[in-house]
Amino acid sequence: MKDALANAEDKRAAGEAVAALVEDGMVVGLGTGSTVAWTIRRLGSMVGDGLEILGVPTSYQAESLAIECGITLTTLSQHPSLDLAIDGADQVDEGFFVIKGGGAAHAREKVVAYSARRFAIVADASKYVPRLDHPVPLEVLPFAAGIVSRKVEELGGRATLRQAKMKDGPVITDNGNFIVDADFGEILDPSLLANRLSAIPGLVEHGIFENLDRLYIARSGEVEVIDRPK
Amino acid sequence: MKDALANAEDKRAAGEAVAALVEDGMVVGLGTGSTVAWTIRRLGSMVGDGLEILGVPTSYQAESLAIECGITLTTLSQHPSLDLAIDGADQVDEGFFVIKGGGAAHAREKVVAYSARRFAIVADASKYVPRLDHPVPLEVLPFAAGIVSRKVEELGGRATLRQAKMKDGPVITDNGNFIVDADFGEILDPSLLANRLSAIPGLVEHGIFENLDRLYIARSGEVEVIDRPK
Repeated sequence: MKDALANAEDKRAAGEAVAALVEDGMVVGLGTGSTVAWTIRRLGSMVGDGLEILGVPTSYQAESLAIECGITLTTLSQHPSLDLAIDGADQVDEGFFVIKGGGAAHAREKVVAYSARRFAIVADASKYVPRLDHPVPLEVLPFAAGIVSRKVEELGGRATLRQAKMKDGPVITDNGNFIVDADFGEILDPSLLANRLSAIPGLVEHGIFENLDRLYIARSGEVEVIDRPK
Repeated sequence: MKDALANAEDKRAAGEAVAALVEDGMVVGLGTGSTVAWTIRRLGSMVGDGLEILGVPTSYQAESLAIECGITLTTLSQHPSLDLAIDGADQVDEGFFVIKGGGAAHAREKVVAYSARRFAIVADASKYVPRLDHPVPLEVLPFAAGIVSRKVEELGGRATLRQAKMKDGPVITDNGNFIVDADFGEILDPSLLANRLSAIPGLVEHGIFENLDRLYIARSGEVEVIDRPK
C-alpha cells in the first residue's frame, strides 16, 4: 500500500516535470494513461497562466482530459508536424526501446510520436528496465486475430486476445480493432522483433517504439532526466 | 472497344479455369474483383452439381456474390487454415510479386491469402508484366493519412488519397479506413519496399503480396498456367 502510494506520487512527479519542455507556440502531442494525465493537468494550469499551445490528443481519454483542462486542441491534418510529443510507457529499456499499448492507444500514439520533432516519455521507475520483457500489445484487424496469434507463436511468443472488463468480449480499440498481447519473455533484439511484427498480415500496429529522445523517470519523488544514448 | 471485349472474355476465361483446382472438402478463400467473380460463379455452378466446399470471403462483395451463387460460407475464426485462396490482382510480375488493392480489399485479401496453403491468382494478360510499376494501395488509419503520405514521399513515391465516386470525400474501406495510392514508378525491389512500407506508423496494410504459388493468365481466350519460379 505504501509502495502503491509512492508509485502514484512518482507518476505525478514525472508527469509534471516534463511540462518544463513545453514553450509558447508549440504544437504538442498529448499522450494517454495515468502518468501523462498529470502532464495534461499541469499544461492546463500553465495555459491558465498564459501559455499558448495547441494539443494533439492520442486518444479519446487524452482529448476529453485536455478539453476539461482548457487546452486548445488541433488535429494531425491541420498540424502534421508537431514540436513535441509526450507520453507514458509500459516499459522502457536502457537502449531506449519502448513498449506501449497497455491503454490500447498505441497506434494513434505512435502516429503522433513519429509526427513530432522530439518525443519524451514520463514514467515511474518501475517501468525502466535493463531489457524489455513486457508483453507487446498488437492492434489487429478483428478477422486477423487468428493469423496474428499463429505468427506470434512462430516468432516464439505467447498470444492472448485482450478481454474487456466493462463490456462482454474482447477490448475494442478507439479504431474499432482488437488487441492481442504477445509475450516474448525477454526481448533480445527489439528492432528485429519490430520488423517481424510489422510484416504480419492484418497487424495494424505493434507497441514497440524506437524514436524516444528523452526520458523522465521518477523514483521516491525525485525525477531523473535521461537523454537518448548516442 | 474490341480490346475491352477481348479483355472481358479473358477475365472470364482465367476466372473459370482456376476452378479446376478446387476439390471436394476444401476450404477456399474467395477473392474480390471482376475476374475472380467468374471463379465464384463457376464454383457456385459446381456446388449446384454436387461439389462440397466452404468459402471464406475477402470482402462484402465476395460474400454477397458467394451467397447468391449458393456457396456455403465460413469464417477465419472457424477455419483459420484454408486449403486454397483464389484472387485477382492489379499487377503480377515475372518474379511473382503481386500488387493488389484496386478494390480496397487487400487487407482482408492478404489475411486470407496468407492463411491458405496455396494461393492462386487469376488475371487477363494486361496485368502480367516484367516488372511492377502499378501504384501500391495502402490502407491507412484515417488520422495517419498525412504521415503515411510524407513517408511515401521520403521513399521516393507519390501519394494520392483515393477519392470515392458514390459518396463525398475519401473511399472508406470495409474496415473503416482510408486508401492512399502510392506511385513509385518501376519498383526495383518489391521485397525491400514491402518491408519499408510495413514499418510506417498508421499503415494498416500495403498491397504487395509475396506468397503467390500459381498464376492463371488469359490472353485471347487461351489460359496459361504458370507456377512460381523455383
